[in-house]
Amino acid sequence: MNCAIIGRYLGNLLLLEAAFLVPPAAISASLGEEAARRGILLTVGILVVLGLLLRRAGQRSGSTFYAKEGFVLVALAWVVMSFLGSLPFYFSGEIPSLVDCFFETVSGFTTTGASILTDVEAMSKGLLFWRSFTHWLGGMGMLVFLLAVAPGQKGQGFTLHLMRAESPGPSVGKLVPKMRQTAKILYLLYVGLTIICVLFLLAGGMPLFDSLCTAFGTAGTGGFGIKNDSMASYSIYLQGVCTVFMALFGVNFSVYYLLFRNWRAALKDEEVRLYFAIMLSVSAVIACNIYPQMGSVGMSIHEATFHTSSIMTTTGFAISNFDLWPELSRALLLVLMIAGACAGSTGGGVKTIRLLLIFKNMKAGFRKLLHPNSVETVKLNGRPVSRSVLEGINTYMSAYCLIAIASLLVVSLDNFSLVTNLSAVLSCFNNIGPGLDIVGPIHNYSTYSDLSKIVLSLDMLLGRLEIFPMLILLRPATYRRQA
Amino acid sequence: MNCAIIGRYLGNLLLLEAAFLVPPAAISASLGEEAARRGILLTVGILVVLGLLLRRAGQRSGSTFYAKEGFVLVALAWVVMSFLGSLPFYFSGEIPSLVDCFFETVSGFTTTGASILTDVEAMSKGLLFWRSFTHWLGGMGMLVFLLAVAPGQKGQGFTLHLMRAESPGPSVGKLVPKMRQTAKILYLLYVGLTIICVLFLLAGGMPLFDSLCTAFGTAGTGGFGIKNDSMASYSIYLQGVCTVFMALFGVNFSVYYLLFRNWRAALKDEEVRLYFAIMLSVSAVIACNIYPQMGSVGMSIHEATFHTSSIMTTTGFAISNFDLWPELSRALLLVLMIAGACAGSTGGGVKTIRLLLIFKNMKAGFRKLLHPNSVETVKLNGRPVSRSVLEGINTYMSAYCLIAIASLLVVSLDNFSLVTNLSAVLSCFNNIGPGLDIVGPIHNYSTYSDLSKIVLSLDMLLGRLEIFPMLILLRPATYRRQA
Repeated sequence: MNCAIIGRYLGNLLLLEAAFLVPPAAISASLGEEAARRGILLTVGILVVLGLLLRRAGQRSGSTFYAKEGFVLVALAWVVMSFLGSLPFYFSGEIPSLVDCFFETVSGFTTTGASILTDVEAMSKGLLFWRSFTHWLGGMGMLVFLLAVAPGQKGQGFTLHLMRAESPGPSVGKLVPKMRQTAKILYLLYVGLTIICVLFLLAGGMPLFDSLCTAFGTAGTGGFGIKNDSMASYSIYLQGVCTVFMALFGVNFSVYYLLFRNWRAALKDEEVRLYFAIMLSVSAVIACNIYPQMGSVGMSIHEATFHTSSIMTTTGFAISNFDLWPELSRALLLVLMIAGACAGSTGGGVKTIRLLLIFKNMKAGFRKLLHPNSVETVKLNGRPVSRSVLEGINTYMSAYCLIAIASLLVVSLDNFSLVTNLSAVLSCFNNIGPGLDIVGPIHNYSTYSDLSKIVLSLDMLLGRLEIFPMLILLRPATYRRQA
Repeated sequence: MNCAIIGRYLGNLLLLEAAFLVPPAAISASLGEEAARRGILLTVGILVVLGLLLRRAGQRSGSTFYAKEGFVLVALAWVVMSFLGSLPFYFSGEIPSLVDCFFETVSGFTTTGASILTDVEAMSKGLLFWRSFTHWLGGMGMLVFLLAVAPGQKGQGFTLHLMRAESPGPSVGKLVPKMRQTAKILYLLYVGLTIICVLFLLAGGMPLFDSLCTAFGTAGTGGFGIKNDSMASYSIYLQGVCTVFMALFGVNFSVYYLLFRNWRAALKDEEVRLYFAIMLSVSAVIACNIYPQMGSVGMSIHEATFHTSSIMTTTGFAISNFDLWPELSRALLLVLMIAGACAGSTGGGVKTIRLLLIFKNMKAGFRKLLHPNSVETVKLNGRPVSRSVLEGINTYMSAYCLIAIASLLVVSLDNFSLVTNLSAVLSCFNNIGPGLDIVGPIHNYSTYSDLSKIVLSLDMLLGRLEIFPMLILLRPATYRRQA
């Protein structure tokens, strides 16, 4: 394996992370938050030194860069950046346990939004900003950012392997022939949509700081709230804005690009259609189901759409305690946690396109059972889907189930209820945030043991990077000479 | 579709069911259970009349018999025989609701063992015998029985399609070149093992009636108890006998055949090895986990092995309330519910061989991800597994998840806890019996609504017949002219 090139790009990423810590440091400095400012700057120092050392060590790297290097670089970058990004919380003393700091930062970068904080509002503004900013950075991916802004890399293979490893979904579509150009377009769309979201929030009277943090959480489909009651105390207008924007950020970004170029094709995209069909039908069922509890049609629809959008896009904002809803709604939310948003969005979960292809493949398999000699092709948007993509989905789903079950068993050692543990694992693994029962929307993850927190942190990373990069990073065979 | 031939064989099956109702009728007659005797004989009359009519109607059938006819015949037979087999409970007045009668009989034939009875011991001996006997009949399959005993059928295609549709597992292996001979060998092994089980139970001082019923429940991996406390009041020896025989009936029967012919190969069978490896390791973990609660090493091991064997083989006997165990053990049991026993056994669930092949296929997919141009073959017992078998497993697993989720949502309408509903669906779908919480081992399914009972009954049938026959029976396209 070409370790030198991995070191070099990791170095670049750490310098980038240092740069992203400057705004939070400035906020803390301007508000006189001494401990936070010092904590952030100390981290910036460490990042810069480490970054420069790694760049230097990797200077004489060859240009060998295969799929394996791509996976390892991405997985390593996410673990290292999460760890170093958690240091400001630790140095400032605002989160005393290092495991908690790591959990919170992984939760941020992976756009999960699961928190160990019992009193969010007690945190300094600078660190609150950093906490929400990690959502925004993690949403589209730091390596994709690096690809979009950094000059002269090693060409197509390099960028393709990185995008494949970091971007969610069964296959990365190129919007334009050049991958780097694709990364740029994605980030432009991302920045543009985020700004529009901020403007809508400002128009509803939300303060600028709150608007930025909320928009970061919405755009990255992260879900860290900056209030103890998440979004409950904001106006119905502001909550409605979030409902809409969460749903929008759960759409495959390449469809937005397609909207400009061929809007007919964009509107016919099968994944996006299924995504909205699921969202609307689940909202409708939940609205009917909670109506007796809510008492008003309007509030039933508002609560149902908000939380459906929040859970399905894997954001995790809450405006009330949906854990108290009837069992049908709770079960629906649990299922939605697994479903997730569109591929190529900032959302997590299994992804709508995988569900769609699994369903189509099942139907094809079914036909084959009755007519063993027929040739069955699975088509998406009118084009046949290759066998290798379908097999990739199966591999992914098998690994998905295995990891979920293993995590559930380890987390069960803490002896919380089965619903708590199951929803905690599904919520973290699918990058949502809140679960049910003890990790429900009005609670948090602080009561779990350190072992469970580490397992759940790994689940978040596995979920965000869609399993394979992390598995390749962790398996010993990766580091054997011949491999 | 060739309806005439389906009618003819259905007629034969009903006559067979009538014959199987004679022993229970004799028991009731000898014990003076008037209502039960009358109920059973009335049912026998209905079965004979219906059976003869169907045979007559199907007399002039052609010999067309494809996979589709096989699936439809098997699925239809199971539904009709379950319905008619439930009539004795209804006519005798011992179970007043027809939905409950159906649930109980489906639970019997599918070897689930989920019950709506709150007081089993109040039931007449004749009907208790019939109830347990359905387990034994359903375990190896009534159609396989018909194949084994009935003279001159339509040749290989016919028997193969029927065995494929009724026998659990991704692929039916022929033990000997002729399918009918295979069916005979399977039933001989089944009868032989059952008799040995009865002898071991009798040796422990269990009365003959109890021994027969318990052996039926064990051999069919069904799990209907004839005591209100399931197996709790029997001696440790008798419970131990059940532990061992449940495990033995969860083994692929063709491996027993192989034991006689080539014991080395039998002992190396990868599925059976994994089956016992899972059973032993889960038992060990549970034994450690429940030790603080039990207080004695011996009882911890006894309880852990009994319930692991009971749940993994999808039998469902209980000797204590495992719902009170620590969360790790409860979670392990829930996972075991899905895993199930070996293919080609009387047990249900996903089956060990599917888990094994899913895992091997995942590893192959993983290698392919790193080396896209390599050719990856999945092997079982040294022989390559065909692509179509692996694809069949994927189709099965997709349908499995879809049905489980849909069932969970419908059953959630009853507003019991999520753990109750999830475990009820998994327990019925995988043909186990007890679940957790309200459907835990010391409770039963009587509190569910009729809608939920019907959904759970369908789940049991879907689980026992491994989904496809039932789906093909239920889909409208099956009955279109061109299909």
